[in-house]
Amino acid sequence: MDRAVALIGCGLVGRGWMILFANAGYEVRAYDTSERARRTALDAVKANLELLERERMIASAADLLGRVRLCASLAEATDGAGYVQESVPETVECKRAVFSELGRLAPPPAILASSCSSIPPQQFLEEVTGPERCLIAHPFNPPHLIPLVELVPSRLTSEQTLRRTRELLEELGQRPVVINKPVVGFAVNRLQAALINEAISLVADGVIEPEELDLCVSQGLGLRWAFIGPFETMELNAPNGFLDYATKFAATYRSILDTMRVDRPWPSEALARVESWRRTVLPTEGDISRRRLWRDHNLMQLAKLYRGEKLRGSRT
Amino acid sequence: MDRAVALIGCGLVGRGWMILFANAGYEVRAYDTSERARRTALDAVKANLELLERERMIASAADLLGRVRLCASLAEATDGAGYVQESVPETVECKRAVFSELGRLAPPPAILASSCSSIPPQQFLEEVTGPERCLIAHPFNPPHLIPLVELVPSRLTSEQTLRRTRELLEELGQRPVVINKPVVGFAVNRLQAALINEAISLVADGVIEPEELDLCVSQGLGLRWAFIGPFETMELNAPNGFLDYATKFAATYRSILDTMRVDRPWPSEALARVESWRRTVLPTEGDISRRRLWRDHNLMQLAKLYRGEKLRGSRT
Repeated sequence: MDRAVALIGCGLVGRGWMILFANAGYEVRAYDTSERARRTALDAVKANLELLERERMIASAADLLGRVRLCASLAEATDGAGYVQESVPETVECKRAVFSELGRLAPPPAILASSCSSIPPQQFLEEVTGPERCLIAHPFNPPHLIPLVELVPSRLTSEQTLRRTRELLEELGQRPVVINKPVVGFAVNRLQAALINEAISLVADGVIEPEELDLCVSQGLGLRWAFIGPFETMELNAPNGFLDYATKFAATYRSILDTMRVDRPWPSEALARVESWRRTVLPTEGDISRRRLWRDHNLMQLAKLYRGEKLRGSRT
Repeated sequence: MDRAVALIGCGLVGRGWMILFANAGYEVRAYDTSERARRTALDAVKANLELLERERMIASAADLLGRVRLCASLAEATDGAGYVQESVPETVECKRAVFSELGRLAPPPAILASSCSSIPPQQFLEEVTGPERCLIAHPFNPPHLIPLVELVPSRLTSEQTLRRTRELLEELGQRPVVINKPVVGFAVNRLQAALINEAISLVADGVIEPEELDLCVSQGLGLRWAFIGPFETMELNAPNGFLDYATKFAATYRSILDTMRVDRPWPSEALARVESWRRTVLPTEGDISRRRLWRDHNLMQLAKLYRGEKLRGSRT
């Protein structure tokens, strides 16, 4: 019974969770209010699993698929589930409606987790039946290839819920981090926002062309950040470590930050120049979809490089 | 004669250039004012080359080392060199002094390039003999494993100099990008500054622990940025590409940027907390050095993953 989990919402994120839980040996019950999403979900998961099998990251796509059951109702999906992961559209209304039902259908001690990426937990988790067992567990696309998960407790979330969720995610092979204060964007999207904003500024100010801006990361900064974080990257660039670096380059960084603007709306002309370049590279929606598969293929190679042949948390 | 290059400064950066030029078949003449640096440079390069040979990224360390000659004077190093790459300490005085001599010893049409990372080109390149053949070519550590090079022309740099330097660097297997306006930090260090500043803010504000902040990048953002830039990352996260993403998430990013601070000096208490964590992980300078080798080993694995067994630009 404890090995049953309910996954609510069968979009891109929900399907990533299906793979992770099935891979760790859980009985997955999935549900989506959209009949179309329910119908297409298993095919999409199957295609992904077959890709993972071909890359030898799982032993058998069929075995994993056999652990996923599409359910006809929220009640059926949550029946007996000790853990529920919600991945419905990102609006307060959607989240509130689903959690109100979940609170009733999956009473404590079942853990209710939300894949929410930007709504603070107090806006939809504190009025649920048993708010102490509710929290945000925010994954990144595609969840089965990006280990990071942000755990964001509300003021009412218990220590035990946080600990149990952390342990469960680690069992799946994920790397949870805890957000102690629910600031907007949590941590990861704030880091991303800082870099994106400066990237757009550099293009807007005519410092660099859009395609070369992307190379600054993919051929430079990103190579180190693929396996060490920004603090350790700083540390390894000075003889005596982090503080040595932060002190030595404080003035340089200060003069950069003094000319950095976070108060300016993204200039539409700059956005148009980036878009124009991208449409030259990938003209159609189909091209973008194919490129997404290429991205996932590259992520699989990275996963193998860092974590061996098997998908993290593999029981197969 | 055209295959001879002069590399001035034999520190970490200069030694990376030695490997790149030797690997592409150039006759390398290296010089450093410090006799100690000259004495230790070849041993350090040899150790790096042997590591590359062991990783099968070059055919023969001995062959490449045979192409590097340590010179006793600047005059000897630059004699007959068609390209000079300067990598001396990062102060205006040092740069000015070296370029003044280089202007005399290596007359036009020899190209004079500086590895300078933060001093604007007009502060030391415009008064050199033949300023049209001078520019900044800023690499990243370690240069033989990070392809990116920022090319920063001064107002007097000729189109031909920019084109020839770009072609030469591409021949070495590097990925040059052009900085059209010499803003402080150029492009890459501005992107890095934006992310680092927000990382320190998140720790200072108690949002996340230092070690978990690093995981946000190394287990999340950095995996995608290892092979696609920030603009393409945005593109692949929306059905219809970059502009679709920028429009859809504009309000979310705006609310993040509205609470982002670039005007606050890095709080020393936050820096101390990061440093305290790092000293737990790597207590001594020796530990940091060993970790640097581990970083380079990982960068070699990435280089192999993306560019096959051989070092880029390999002629061996």
